[in-house]
Amino acid sequence: MDFLMANPATSIRVDALAKRVMQRCDHLSNHTQEPGRITRLFLSPAIRAIHVDLSAWMREIGMDVRTDAAGNLVGRLAASSQPHVEPTLYDKSSDETQVLDAIQPDAPRPVLLLGSHIDTVPNAGKYDGLLGVIVALAVAERLQELQQQLPFDLDVVAFSEEEGVRFSKPYLGSAAIAGRFDPAWLDRRDDRGQTMHSVITEFGLDPAQICNAAYNPQQVLGFIEMHVEQGPVLERLNKPVGVVNAIAGQSRLILRFSGQAGHAGTTPMYPRQDALVSAAHLIAEVQDYGRSIDGLRATVGYVNCHPNVRNVIPGDVEVSLDVRHAMDDVREIAVEALLETATRIANDDGVAVEVLENQPQPATEMDAVLNGVLAQAMEDAGHEPFDLLSGAGHDAVAMADAFPVAMLFVRHPDGVSHNPSERVNEADVAVSIEVLTRAVQRLASQVRESALT
Amino acid sequence: MDFLMANPATSIRVDALAKRVMQRCDHLSNHTQEPGRITRLFLSPAIRAIHVDLSAWMREIGMDVRTDAAGNLVGRLAASSQPHVEPTLYDKSSDETQVLDAIQPDAPRPVLLLGSHIDTVPNAGKYDGLLGVIVALAVAERLQELQQQLPFDLDVVAFSEEEGVRFSKPYLGSAAIAGRFDPAWLDRRDDRGQTMHSVITEFGLDPAQICNAAYNPQQVLGFIEMHVEQGPVLERLNKPVGVVNAIAGQSRLILRFSGQAGHAGTTPMYPRQDALVSAAHLIAEVQDYGRSIDGLRATVGYVNCHPNVRNVIPGDVEVSLDVRHAMDDVREIAVEALLETATRIANDDGVAVEVLENQPQPATEMDAVLNGVLAQAMEDAGHEPFDLLSGAGHDAVAMADAFPVAMLFVRHPDGVSHNPSERVNEADVAVSIEVLTRAVQRLASQVRESALT
Repeated sequence: MDFLMANPATSIRVDALAKRVMQRCDHLSNHTQEPGRITRLFLSPAIRAIHVDLSAWMREIGMDVRTDAAGNLVGRLAASSQPHVEPTLYDKSSDETQVLDAIQPDAPRPVLLLGSHIDTVPNAGKYDGLLGVIVALAVAERLQELQQQLPFDLDVVAFSEEEGVRFSKPYLGSAAIAGRFDPAWLDRRDDRGQTMHSVITEFGLDPAQICNAAYNPQQVLGFIEMHVEQGPVLERLNKPVGVVNAIAGQSRLILRFSGQAGHAGTTPMYPRQDALVSAAHLIAEVQDYGRSIDGLRATVGYVNCHPNVRNVIPGDVEVSLDVRHAMDDVREIAVEALLETATRIANDDGVAVEVLENQPQPATEMDAVLNGVLAQAMEDAGHEPFDLLSGAGHDAVAMADAFPVAMLFVRHPDGVSHNPSERVNEADVAVSIEVLTRAVQRLASQVRESALT
Repeated sequence: MDFLMANPATSIRVDALAKRVMQRCDHLSNHTQEPGRITRLFLSPAIRAIHVDLSAWMREIGMDVRTDAAGNLVGRLAASSQPHVEPTLYDKSSDETQVLDAIQPDAPRPVLLLGSHIDTVPNAGKYDGLLGVIVALAVAERLQELQQQLPFDLDVVAFSEEEGVRFSKPYLGSAAIAGRFDPAWLDRRDDRGQTMHSVITEFGLDPAQICNAAYNPQQVLGFIEMHVEQGPVLERLNKPVGVVNAIAGQSRLILRFSGQAGHAGTTPMYPRQDALVSAAHLIAEVQDYGRSIDGLRATVGYVNCHPNVRNVIPGDVEVSLDVRHAMDDVREIAVEALLETATRIANDDGVAVEVLENQPQPATEMDAVLNGVLAQAMEDAGHEPFDLLSGAGHDAVAMADAFPVAMLFVRHPDGVSHNPSERVNEADVAVSIEVLTRAVQRLASQVRESALT
C-alpha cells in the first residue's frame, strides 16, 4: 500500500484540521489596528498580537519559535534525529542513521520552508497571506500525526511584510530571509514620518541583526507558499487548488505632476496649471490602455495631492502606477507607452511630469522540481494536476532570488481580494492541507533517495 | 486747509509705516507649523506665536488686547473720551463732550472693526490674511500719530480661522464675532481625529464662551477688511488698490464615488469598478466645464482615496468641488450640471456616487455707505475710485451676516495666491494705509455729524 494514499480516517482528520484553520483565520481577524476593519501594517501592535497566537500554536506542535530581526516569526519542526526511511522505497539493508550523515557530511541540516505573510493592506480580507501560514501549521501538525520522519528541518515562516503599504516597499520579510534586505530601506519613513529603523527598534528588534535573518541557500531545499488565488481562474474552472507556473512581472512607478498652486476662487480657468487635472487625465488613460491589451493589468491605486485643500488649485500630485503582465516584454512596452502618455498630457496641460520611482520586477519562474512534486501530490490526493499564472506578487517573488520556490493556490470564490469580502471554502482548504502534506512527504522521500544514490 | 489732504510729511510717514508692514509680514512668516513653508492652521502653535507678536505691537500703540473663546485676537483703540471734533466741519459752538453723549444716551459705545485672518492654507504666501491685520495696526498707529479723536472704539481683529483647512469649515473666527458660530461645529474632527472642542480647550480657551465672542450688531458701525486681491484685475489695470463691490457666491461640495476595491494584479480590467477612475473622469470634466462658462471658477482641490495603496484598486474616493461665480444663478446652474455629470460618470462606470456635502454661499453685497466712504477716501488720497469683484471668499462674507462690511483690495503682482510666491508692492501697501486712514477719519466725521443732526 502506498503510504501516501488517502484513507477515510485521513480525510476525517484533514477535514478537522481545515475546520480549525477557518476558525483560526476568524480568530486572528480580530487582531487589527483599525477597529471594524482588518488592517495590519508592518510591525504594528496587531502584528505582535498575531505573533503571540501563532507562537502558542507553533509550540503546541513541538516547534521551536523565534522572531528574526526583520520581524519574521519562524517555527521550526526539527528534522528527525532518527529519520524513518520508508522501507518499500529504499533498500532495507541501509542503515537509517546513515541517511542524514550522507545528506550532511559536514554541512548543517537542510531545511524546507513553508509559509506566507501576516501583514495586510488596509481594510483587507481574512485570508490573504495569513491563510498560507495557518495551513502550513496544519501541514506540520498533520505530518506529526502521521509520525512522518523528515530528513530536513521544516520551517513555517510568518513573513512580517509583503504588501508594501507602510514603507511603500514590499517583501521586507522575505527579502531579509533571502539575504536581499537593503539596509538603505531602514531610512524609509511611514506616513507619520517614522523611519523603518525606529519602527523595528520599537518592536524590540535590532535592525543591525537583519543580515542574520538570511538563510544559507546551500541549506534551503525550497520554499513552498500556499495562498488564495486572488483571481477568478480556479473558480471558473471549478478546481479547489492549482499549482502556480509563474508570477506575473510587475512594474511599480510613482509619477509626479507639478503645476502651479493658486486660489480656487480667483485664478482664472485659463491658464491654470492644475496638477490634479493632469493626474486625472492620466488615471483615465491608464484604465483605457489597460483594457486595450490582453492580460495586462494597469492600476493607479495611490494619489497624493498637494496641498489637498478644497480652495486651492493642486500644485503637485503624485500617482502610483502598477503594471503587470505574464510576459515581461508586453509589460515593458506598456510602461513605456504609459510614460509617453504622461508626457503628452503634461505637455498639453502645461505642467511638468517626472518619474520618481520605476521598479520593474520581471516575471518569476517557479522551480520545476518543486512544481513536479506539487503536481504529483495533487495526483496522489486525487486531483488532476493543474497550473495557472499568478497575477499578484507574493513573498515567493523575493524568495526566488535565493531559493527554489513554488506556490499552491486555493480557489477564491468571487475572486475579490484586498477586500473584506475575501472568502475561501473550507473544503478547498482541506484539499490544500492534503496536497501540501503529500508534497512534503514526497520531498522527504526524494531527499532520502538522493542521499542514498 | 482740508485736514484730510496729504502733505509731504504725511507721505514720508506712511511710507515708513508701509516699510514696517513689509518687515512685519516677513518676520511673522517665520511662525509656521511646517519648517521651510508657511502653514498655520487653526489654533496651531504657530498661531500662538503670531498672537504673541501681534499683542506686543497692539499694546505699543495703546490698545487693550484680548483673545476671545474662538481664538480671535482683538486689539481695541478706545474711543476718545474727549473727542476732537474738526472745527471746520462742525458748528464751533457745539460742546465736544456732547458728541458722544448724543451718540450713546444709554447704549454702549459704537465700534468700527478692521482686520483679517491669521491662519493660512498649507504652503501659503506671506500676505493672504495677515497683511490685512498688519495694515490695520498701521492705520491705528497712523490715527494715533495724527492725534485723531474717534467717536467710536476701533477694534483690530486677527481672525483665528478663515481658510477652512483644519476642520473643512471656513470663517470660524468671523462667524463667532458675527454671532453665527454653530456649536455643532465643535464636534468636527481634524485629520488627526482631534475635535475642534478639544483643540480650542488645549489652546487654553473655553468653547462654552464662544457665544460671548459675538458683537452686538447695534453697536457695530461696520467691518472693513483689507486683503490682497489674489487675482489679476488691479495688476492688469495698473491700480494699487480697489474697492470690492461684491464677493462671488461659492458652492462647496464633497462627492463620494464608491466602487469595488480589489487586487491590482489579479482583478481583470473588466469589469473593474475603480472609484478613482470615476473621480478622474469628473475632475477632468470639472475643468472643461469651468472653462466653458464665462467668469465661472470650478475646482477640485481635494481628493481622498481609499485605501490609497499602490496595489489595491481604489474602492472609495471623495473629491471636493468648489464652484464660484458673481451671479448666484449661474453658479447654481453650474453645480446642477456638474452633479449631473457626476451621476452620468457613475452610471457609465458602474459605480455609485453620493453628495456628502453641498454648502451654497450666495454672493455677498458690500455696504453702500462704507463703500462710498472708501471711494471718497481713495479720491482724498489722489486715486481714482475703482471697484472690482472678489472671486475669493473672505471673513467679510461671514461678517456680512450681522454687520455692514466693506473690503479694500491691494494689487497682487502675478495674481498668484495660496502659494509661496504671493507678493505685494510696498508702495501699494502705503496707498492702502493712506486710504484706510482717510476712510476711518471720514467715518469719524460722519458719526459726529449724524450725532449732531
